[in-house]
Amino acid sequence: MIRKYTFGNPFPTEAVVKEIPASEGALPYFTREGDSLVLTMEEGAPVYGLGEQVRGINKRGWSYTSNCSDDPHHLETTHSLYGAHNFLMIGGSHPFGLFIDYPGYLTFDIGYTQKDTLRITPTDWDLDIYVIEEEDRRFLSIVHTFRQMIGRSYIPPKWAFGYGQSRWGYRNEADVREVAAKYKEAGIPLDAIYMDIDYMERYEDFTVSAEKFPDLPGLAADMKKEGIHLVPIIDAGVKIEEGYSVYEEGVEKGYFCKEEDGTDFVGAVWPGRAHFPDMLNPAARRWFGLKYRFLLDQGIDGFWNDMNEPAIFYSEKRLNKVFDEVASMKGQNLDLDKNNHLLGLVNTLANNPEDYQSFYHEPGNGLPRIRHDKVHNLYGYNMTRAAGEAFEELEPDKRILMFSRSSYIGMHRYGGIWQGDNLSWWSHLLMNVKMMPSLSMCGFLYTGADLAGFGADTTEDLVMRWLQFGIFTPLMRNHSAMGTRMQEAYRFSNAEALGRIIKLRYCLLPYLYSEYMKAALGDEMLFLPLSFAYPEDPHAAQVEDQLLLGESLMLAPVCQQNAAGRYVYLPEDMLCVTTSGPDDFRCEKMGAGHHYVPVAENELIFFVRRGHLLPLAQTARNVEKLDASRLQLIAYPAGTCRYTLYDDDGYGKDYENPAHLSTIDVSADGEVRYEGSTERTVTTCFICS
Amino acid sequence: MIRKYTFGNPFPTEAVVKEIPASEGALPYFTREGDSLVLTMEEGAPVYGLGEQVRGINKRGWSYTSNCSDDPHHLETTHSLYGAHNFLMIGGSHPFGLFIDYPGYLTFDIGYTQKDTLRITPTDWDLDIYVIEEEDRRFLSIVHTFRQMIGRSYIPPKWAFGYGQSRWGYRNEADVREVAAKYKEAGIPLDAIYMDIDYMERYEDFTVSAEKFPDLPGLAADMKKEGIHLVPIIDAGVKIEEGYSVYEEGVEKGYFCKEEDGTDFVGAVWPGRAHFPDMLNPAARRWFGLKYRFLLDQGIDGFWNDMNEPAIFYSEKRLNKVFDEVASMKGQNLDLDKNNHLLGLVNTLANNPEDYQSFYHEPGNGLPRIRHDKVHNLYGYNMTRAAGEAFEELEPDKRILMFSRSSYIGMHRYGGIWQGDNLSWWSHLLMNVKMMPSLSMCGFLYTGADLAGFGADTTEDLVMRWLQFGIFTPLMRNHSAMGTRMQEAYRFSNAEALGRIIKLRYCLLPYLYSEYMKAALGDEMLFLPLSFAYPEDPHAAQVEDQLLLGESLMLAPVCQQNAAGRYVYLPEDMLCVTTSGPDDFRCEKMGAGHHYVPVAENELIFFVRRGHLLPLAQTARNVEKLDASRLQLIAYPAGTCRYTLYDDDGYGKDYENPAHLSTIDVSADGEVRYEGSTERTVTTCFICS
Repeated sequence: MIRKYTFGNPFPTEAVVKEIPASEGALPYFTREGDSLVLTMEEGAPVYGLGEQVRGINKRGWSYTSNCSDDPHHLETTHSLYGAHNFLMIGGSHPFGLFIDYPGYLTFDIGYTQKDTLRITPTDWDLDIYVIEEEDRRFLSIVHTFRQMIGRSYIPPKWAFGYGQSRWGYRNEADVREVAAKYKEAGIPLDAIYMDIDYMERYEDFTVSAEKFPDLPGLAADMKKEGIHLVPIIDAGVKIEEGYSVYEEGVEKGYFCKEEDGTDFVGAVWPGRAHFPDMLNPAARRWFGLKYRFLLDQGIDGFWNDMNEPAIFYSEKRLNKVFDEVASMKGQNLDLDKNNHLLGLVNTLANNPEDYQSFYHEPGNGLPRIRHDKVHNLYGYNMTRAAGEAFEELEPDKRILMFSRSSYIGMHRYGGIWQGDNLSWWSHLLMNVKMMPSLSMCGFLYTGADLAGFGADTTEDLVMRWLQFGIFTPLMRNHSAMGTRMQEAYRFSNAEALGRIIKLRYCLLPYLYSEYMKAALGDEMLFLPLSFAYPEDPHAAQVEDQLLLGESLMLAPVCQQNAAGRYVYLPEDMLCVTTSGPDDFRCEKMGAGHHYVPVAENELIFFVRRGHLLPLAQTARNVEKLDASRLQLIAYPAGTCRYTLYDDDGYGKDYENPAHLSTIDVSADGEVRYEGSTERTVTTCFICS
Repeated sequence: MIRKYTFGNPFPTEAVVKEIPASEGALPYFTREGDSLVLTMEEGAPVYGLGEQVRGINKRGWSYTSNCSDDPHHLETTHSLYGAHNFLMIGGSHPFGLFIDYPGYLTFDIGYTQKDTLRITPTDWDLDIYVIEEEDRRFLSIVHTFRQMIGRSYIPPKWAFGYGQSRWGYRNEADVREVAAKYKEAGIPLDAIYMDIDYMERYEDFTVSAEKFPDLPGLAADMKKEGIHLVPIIDAGVKIEEGYSVYEEGVEKGYFCKEEDGTDFVGAVWPGRAHFPDMLNPAARRWFGLKYRFLLDQGIDGFWNDMNEPAIFYSEKRLNKVFDEVASMKGQNLDLDKNNHLLGLVNTLANNPEDYQSFYHEPGNGLPRIRHDKVHNLYGYNMTRAAGEAFEELEPDKRILMFSRSSYIGMHRYGGIWQGDNLSWWSHLLMNVKMMPSLSMCGFLYTGADLAGFGADTTEDLVMRWLQFGIFTPLMRNHSAMGTRMQEAYRFSNAEALGRIIKLRYCLLPYLYSEYMKAALGDEMLFLPLSFAYPEDPHAAQVEDQLLLGESLMLAPVCQQNAAGRYVYLPEDMLCVTTSGPDDFRCEKMGAGHHYVPVAENELIFFVRRGHLLPLAQTARNVEKLDASRLQLIAYPAGTCRYTLYDDDGYGKDYENPAHLSTIDVSADGEVRYEGSTERTVTTCFICS
């Protein structure tokens, strides 16, 4: 059951697609104290949700802020990452879900200030609050209801489930060709190469550097022959430069965000001074979205939207003030306070809250002009929506890959997200793990972290362990920053072992794709905390480094350097699978309870749940070459078990066609029965009896 | 066996106190490649050592730099912390120890660039290398030989094993009195209150603010009546100010570090422009050391030396250049590169390597003037030595508390260290755990981290979990930074439970002090990795979050938020003790192997080893009030067991007096026999049969 409570005049975020009438009476569970909603949490009861955030799957014990932020240091004491996902589930004897549809700065103090108190504080009281309760009191049911309310999750093309290589630092066509050639030479599969900001002419959106990429259509076509898709980045800011058509059109049509006095707001990003398209304005959004055509026409079929919190290096007006103030300090004795002031002046130029309070949107549809900070968390959402709506118009029958850095709930319908500019830290591998189920709750199914870490220098074993988890995440991209250690899989002494792990991804693809599509089409979770599937098990809620993936698998990645194994908790008997690559599946039945499981550095483990099976394909060079007509099973039937496989061509949008579904039954004695309109040979690889 | 190899003209660091003749022949194990020493490590063999450093107890998989650095962000990818501890043990079939006595910038690439390769690179080849091998091939034996070579570890007064409260932010006498009163009111023991930089007059060393602390002797005396010692901070830099005697004397006597042209080098710290005493010059060192008398005379008997890497906010000459360059950028379009340049200009003002290359020391003793960067890692060592040598002169019969932020091996004879400006992160609690045995290896026995975290905002459960570990570390200090959440134990809703944990510290004190003194006097380790005590156990080397403390205890702290238990590995049968305070010791025999052990938030667990016992006192308000004449035992005799207890008056230096030693024997059937010249009643609290 969903109840909706409206306070003041909420901005229409369009996060919710279901028509829900406002409820009578007072908001349940909470009391209002000043500007906050307050609730006393039951002792030990977990709190779930918040999507892209730091800390545990259980969010208790910290204060989180919804305030889309470009801050690459995802620390324990960070309050905001790139997204704002205001969905929470409060556990206890009467678990319920809560969605605060509010696009401004919003704080969730979940037992930080007071251990037993949840305190939610918006900046003002123009907001919609949805309370979701389910009779069965299950988190899974609450999520399902919420997801139905916010609409179907984005579905990427199937090739986007392949492995991709990225780096901020591929300078030109030769670099891109080298990456493709080296992967091929090493015999490691590859489906995508990402193009970071250097492909553009002077960091100008919807341009291609004539010098560095003289023939993008030719390059894209050559890559396609190898099954490789080029995926360019698009930035939010538009460079101010006479003669640059996007800039000139935007100015002429009045499509950029404005200062209070109506002049175009000037902030800086990569190219320096820039304007920011008013993504909240329907006409500007359509205008910006249709610009992607420039690249679609050159053979591009995937994009990533960046810097759309929006990140602002500095505003022109603030920069000038800082220059003057710095100059005035010259010659003084800078003691602690003055020295801190100097550092503060320069280091608060970027993403300054005062700047966000100084420009405006024109949302149209009869809505008044609104100051940016009031709707800050909608910017990345609407940039991605701009692209998504344009793709529907330009390529109605084709799926285009799209994922974004910044997001708000609602954006999950138009694209995925990557988990932002992380670092080559073991703790960020663990954060990647913990974020997956929280994002599933909020509808962001197409997601993954920058594998092996974006910033800072990676290590060979971190690349290995992170890829061992990354083969399970829908977005599987190795990405790194300029100036850091190169981390393409072929560069390391264990390249062969890394290649074998990447090949495993392709074996898993029939299952991963099937589970993804079922989760998206059925508004279900893809990654689950253990406690969601085993609500009666009191220990399950303690487990923060294992996940369920779809109906059959439990993951238990190794997230610690030099570790040759790890502890695993099994809520029930499971089949432990140890593998170092496509030809190596060692299966062992393991009893419910605690285990220490050896996992050598070139190996990973995962578990097949009792009563479930895992279909595996032969590995392939890329998704296009994958042969899903021959499947092998690892099964733990426990009586009989049935798996419903979803598969389709991977490009079209005919999702509901029943021909995409087939069933695999395995009996206790290992007999396999396959039924489906697609011809398939299904055999058992391993069966646990 | 120790072999010494000398290259070039090493600077006499005086780290090593034992006379060791140079060996004939080539340095074993390593080959020299260019400027580096190179060795191929055996697969899976651990590498131990490096004292104060990031990452695991096993150092494999990262590149570490000895370069004393004031950098509060102790990240996985940090290369240097505040100390430089160039002692390493390389595991494998022939384990050996290695001490690189070299005070300049030195890199240990331990399988980072190449997974199997240890590569050690000094900046130049003026250095002594010591290779230590032991016939029994045990790490413990190698450490013992090394520790004998570098001399006895610093021994603090016994009261310094009590609990201390600190904060950068106690502004005046009233704040200090309030902390004392609140602890007393809450019934929580307290032995020390630390005074951070605000007690001084304008951040001037060896001054006391007349306004904020009008009567320090009176305050110190009042506090002493409550058993509380005041411990002021001393900074390395001396403020440039006419009329300030320390400054004027230093200039007059020529005791400050010099520019190449012989003028006094100007760097800035808290007070702004400052000079840096030439701690490497014996006369300057004695001069600076004797200044501590100013505070000793006011009733002070403990100090902490800070900012002695030395930290430099900026040099005057660089600051002026930066001002000019910033000014020249005004009006330009700052694109990515120029914006980064602007940020870089300001953010590399502090601790800039070029500044360290621009001033000089006069080490005396016939040694030529030497550029600071060549001996950078000796600065904090010699500041603390200045104090230590002065204390010997001023108070020859009394122990004075002294610990430092920066250090080099050799300094362990003059003082302890705290583990620097950490953050309120769970990962820094774990780092605290991992650093303890590495510091034990290097002779730094008196150490601990800023409990609950110095920078960033702590949480109630982090305070609890960190104190639960902190009661075992010799330095037990709760310290936090200005601007962060207040974290005195009495401020939280669980103050009573926190108080019960702090009280436990006092119950443990007879054991902690005894083990400390035996380790210091016998050149042994105090905290051990499991693998040192169980070298035959292949799993022991995998355990990174459990430690042995002295001969009887194994620690297994909970380092994860919201965790209600943890996994523990027992190399042999042990007695698991669960406790929430002095009146609550629940003991359970636990078999060798892996266990999941529940540990509620207000509880901690530790383990008593088979064949060992733990003496416990009643808790006390402070160390002075502790009654060690009545002891209760938790024992796991396994046949009989004997414990040798060291105790003394805690102030004097008559360490070798045999009267300090007594023995406690427990037979298999629980009979206790005590022998010693001190009268004691020893009874059993719990015996495991």
